[in-house]
Parts: sequence; structure tokens; C-alpha cells
Amino acid sequence: MSNRSTPESFDPMEFRKALGSFATGVTIITTRAADGTPLGLTANSFNSVSLDPPLVLWSLANNAGSFDAFRSAEHWAVHVLGSDQEDLSGRFARRGEDKFSGLDTEEGLGGVPLLRGCAARFECRTASQYQGGDHLIFIGEVLRFARDEAAPLVFHGGKYAHATRRDPPGQKPRSAHLAGSFGEDFLGYLLGRSHFRFFAQIRPFLEKEGLDDMEFYVLSTLTLRPLLTEGQIAEGMAGVLDERRLRAVDGLVERGFARRTPEGFELTDSGREAAIRLISAAKAVESQVLERLGTADAAILKTTLNRLLGVVDERGADVLWAKDTQVG
Amino acid sequence: MSNRSTPESFDPMEFRKALGSFATGVTIITTRAADGTPLGLTANSFNSVSLDPPLVLWSLANNAGSFDAFRSAEHWAVHVLGSDQEDLSGRFARRGEDKFSGLDTEEGLGGVPLLRGCAARFECRTASQYQGGDHLIFIGEVLRFARDEAAPLVFHGGKYAHATRRDPPGQKPRSAHLAGSFGEDFLGYLLGRSHFRFFAQIRPFLEKEGLDDMEFYVLSTLTLRPLLTEGQIAEGMAGVLDERRLRAVDGLVERGFARRTPEGFELTDSGREAAIRLISAAKAVESQVLERLGTADAAILKTTLNRLLGVVDERGADVLWAKDTQVG
Repeated sequence: MSNRSTPESFDPMEFRKALGSFATGVTIITTRAADGTPLGLTANSFNSVSLDPPLVLWSLANNAGSFDAFRSAEHWAVHVLGSDQEDLSGRFARRGEDKFSGLDTEEGLGGVPLLRGCAARFECRTASQYQGGDHLIFIGEVLRFARDEAAPLVFHGGKYAHATRRDPPGQKPRSAHLAGSFGEDFLGYLLGRSHFRFFAQIRPFLEKEGLDDMEFYVLSTLTLRPLLTEGQIAEGMAGVLDERRLRAVDGLVERGFARRTPEGFELTDSGREAAIRLISAAKAVESQVLERLGTADAAILKTTLNRLLGVVDERGADVLWAKDTQVG
Repeated sequence: MSNRSTPESFDPMEFRKALGSFATGVTIITTRAADGTPLGLTANSFNSVSLDPPLVLWSLANNAGSFDAFRSAEHWAVHVLGSDQEDLSGRFARRGEDKFSGLDTEEGLGGVPLLRGCAARFECRTASQYQGGDHLIFIGEVLRFARDEAAPLVFHGGKYAHATRRDPPGQKPRSAHLAGSFGEDFLGYLLGRSHFRFFAQIRPFLEKEGLDDMEFYVLSTLTLRPLLTEGQIAEGMAGVLDERRLRAVDGLVERGFARRTPEGFELTDSGREAAIRLISAAKAVESQVLERLGTADAAILKTTLNRLLGVVDERGADVLWAKDTQVG
């Protein structure tokens, strides 16, 4: 291993990093102080302990602001956060502010404030507390719990992460008859087929406007800026349409969707209208597809495709995306 | 929440599921029994407790086979598993077999067997043991630790999962100048651009063989089976090339790479050779791209693209992938 520490050289930063290599979910733990104040904090030190009796644990730093309140609380609740609750996690991880302000809570056992919309919730009664160095370990007996199907919010290496289930290792991708040929999991196959099949759902809308795929690429590219020079179009289409862009640009001009000006190309009014119609249809297709894929996997797919673009498209289409404000 | 349980209806299966909604890493914990036998088990009940003194914890079922050995062990080690160690996790999760057989271990403090290649490793001395219902909680003082940069193996909902870091929420995708147009994170844009840019790295090899993109798609499709009928080609290319496949097939026949037989189309010898050359070049491109993306994100990208295909390509190209054995 690349980093080793022995008792003689126990670097706290390195130790923290090593601990961070264990991925965890994220929880918010709430209680009500003796004076009635609702309290809550974000913790990833949660874990299950026992099924019978049902016990869970978590630990809290001795110097935490709410330490005394939790130590003397008889009841508290653990909320396991879902993939869409990163903001809530951040809110309860900060000190000081009124964390419950504007949140829709309900009252749980012992008056503990309960948050809604979490992946799971455990209402607990303190069973034991054990000193663990600079933290206190809380063991809670679970009195009541609730669960929702939800993708998890994950924490790893000091950062939030997405998680998605693995396919069982037995599922080998199929391969071609010809040895040495592609398997089903060749990235080019997956990308090409996904792209074409996704696009096939948009194509009927293009056909209504009398456009082919390449003309649509250029039409959407022309929505990026008020005017694109030939050089910018060439740059944006490098490795995409390359020379084929010329025919597509001509097609759009012929159809009255774009016009050539001394400075470059711009959409005409009817080009803008066609673009808006097509893009709205394409976005509707996207919504349906992503809904069926699930929001968690949709976010992961987009994240990893973006990273792939960072590899295969280093210069990117950066020049084309508008930094100025949008127009209607 | 959809599933609630109160003390009156405490379904153990439901409780287990609720606990499983908290994602965790996966660890293997090892020790050496008094008689010298190396012992190890897979656990996800690990968590950090204290930085100063450095303490970690995990818990073990009272009825576990190695319970007595761990209870009386002075030393044990926690190995946090990386994304590529699912097999190792499975091996140490099973009872009975000689888990260390064939593994390359080293000897740690107190003679504890240490596994190599993990994301992190903590060598501990038992600091305390606390009874926690049907489990015993082990608190260990960390005497020595090591860490490697590695994507984590994750467990969630009773299954292994992949995890990948989230992009900071501040990074908003850029959008087009024309309001209502696409943003940078439109799936069609990400798929199309990834596909084209990836393919652009393969195109120089095609050009050497005098092939265009569509001819290459059909050429690779013809490697899937010894012979494809026109109907099979049409089915495999539905939503991909559709009618354009006909021109591509003709092109391959003209160039002597494929021939038409009474039953359908097959590759000629020179077609097979060209296919092997091109596919090997394409695989080399894929390897470079995936290496730069990182193996963990590469696996996640392929997993989610496959799921996307399940949505946009329900019937799929199933008919084409060979179930019979490969030929050279």
C-alpha cells in the first residue's frame, strides 16, 4: 500500500483519509432538548448492531454543540438519507443556523422531530452509551421504523457519491461468433446503439420538419449562440460531423431555417421556431427515458458520460456554449 | 413512507431491509486464533469512532463460528475492500472453506494475517467489547494503518453496488443562447457527442480499409454470426441504420468484404480479416479511453448504458448475438 502509518508517525490527516475510504450512507439524527428545542445533525457513524433486540448505534464527538442534549435525551431518531437529499445533509451538517426552519416535520416518540421523505427512519430509545475516545457511542433500541425504496446518498473519501447496484458477476456479456470480435459490452457498441436508439425516438419529429439527423445537429448547434462563424461551426463539429456539416448547413439554408450573413450563420425566425418545437419534443423523449431509467441511474449516467467526454473530447464544444444571457 | 413498523408489528425481514437502506463499505476482519489458525470474515458493521485516541468499531453475531476466537483475540485487522474485491468479499462471507487458501498474506501485529491490495487497512488492539443484543461490539485501538487510492466496494439493500463521486452541486450545466433549447446535460447531446467523439478515434482505421461508418457497423454486425439473413440484418439495424443498411451492405459486397448467398449474407475471408484488424484497433482505442476514465467509472458507465439500452432498446439486438461457440 502506498501510505503506511505506524504509531510513531500517526498523521491525523492521513488517518482521517484512511477512515474515509470506507463508504457510508448519510444520516440525520434528531432529538428534542429538555427545553423543547428541536436538534439535529448529520452523521455517517451510524450502523446496525442487533436484530433481536433491534439495536443500532452511532457516535457523537464529545465537543459537539448538541452533545449534552443528546447525552441526556431518552429518545432520538435516525433518518437514512436518499440520493436526492444532499441539500438536507448539508443543512444539518452546518453549525448554528435554525436547521428545522421551513421543514415539514412530524412529531415522533418522545416528541422527537421527524423528517419526511427519507430512505429509512428509526425511532430509538437510548439503550446504552459508551465512551469511545473523543466520541460517545449511542446504542439505541429501535421502537418504530419506516422505509421507502430510494437510491442512497453515499459518502466516500470526504465527498458525496452516487451508488448504483452492480449486475451479478455471473452475467457475462455475450460475444460475437467470430473470435476476437466485439462483445456486447464494447463501449463503442453501447454508445453507438444507445445514441441511435435514443435518436430513433426523436427522428419522427425531424421527419415532420423535413430534416435529417445531421441537419438537426447543426440546427441545435445554431441555437447555442446568436451567430456562429464558419470556424466555430467547424470547431464544434470536429469529430462529430466534420465535413458532413457543410451539406447540413446548406440544407438548413435551402429550407429557410438558417441564413448566411457576412459574419457567419444564424437561425431565421422559422428556424428558431422549428428548433424550439424539435427541442421540446426531444426533451419530452428524454424525460420519458430518464424516468424509466430512474433518477439515480439517470444522474449517474450523465455524470459518467460527462467524464467520458472529458477523456474523448478534451477541447470540447466549449467555444459554442453561451456565457451570455438567454433570449426567448 | 410506504412501510412502517411499530413495536406491535416488528417484522424482522422488514427491519433488515430498513437497515439495508444505509449504504456501507465492505470490510474483511482477520485475526489469528490461539491455536495459530488464521481467521477472517466479511463485515459491513465497521465504522470509525474516535480520532484521538484512534478508535474504530465493528460488531459480530454472538453465534458466529469465529466468535470465541475474536472475543479472546488481542489483535485483529480491518481491511476496507476496493471496488475490484467483490470476489474476496464473497469468499470471506461464506462459512467453512479455507478462506486463506492461495491468498498472498503478510503477518501483522500480533501475528494477524493481513490481506494485500485493499483500499485501507487498520491493525488494531481490542480496546473494549460491549454487548449489543445478539452481537458483540468490538472497539479497537488502531496501532497501524495503510491506505491506497481505490474506488470502494459498496453494499446497499443486500446487494453490492458501485459508487462514484458526485460533481459539486454548484457546477450547473451550461445552456444554449436560445431559451428553451438544450443544455449541456441533455442526454441526446451527451450520447451523440460521446459516440461521435469516441468513433472519431476509430475512423482513421476505417479510412485505411476504405470503409465509412455505416459499412463498419454492418461489417461488425456480420461478425456476430456465421450468416445473417436479410431479415436479421434489418432487425439488428432497426432504429440504428434502418434503410441506410442497404447501401452499407452493398458497399461491403462491392469491396469484396461480404457476399450474398441464397440464405443471406456472410463475410468473405478478406472481410473477416479486415473486421479482425478494425476490431482490434477499436478495442485498443477503448482500452485507452477506459484507462483514462478509470476502471470504476468505466464499469459504472457500461452498467448504466446497458440499463439505458434496456429502456430505449427493449427488444434489443438479441437475435444477433451468438449463443453457439466462437470460431477463429
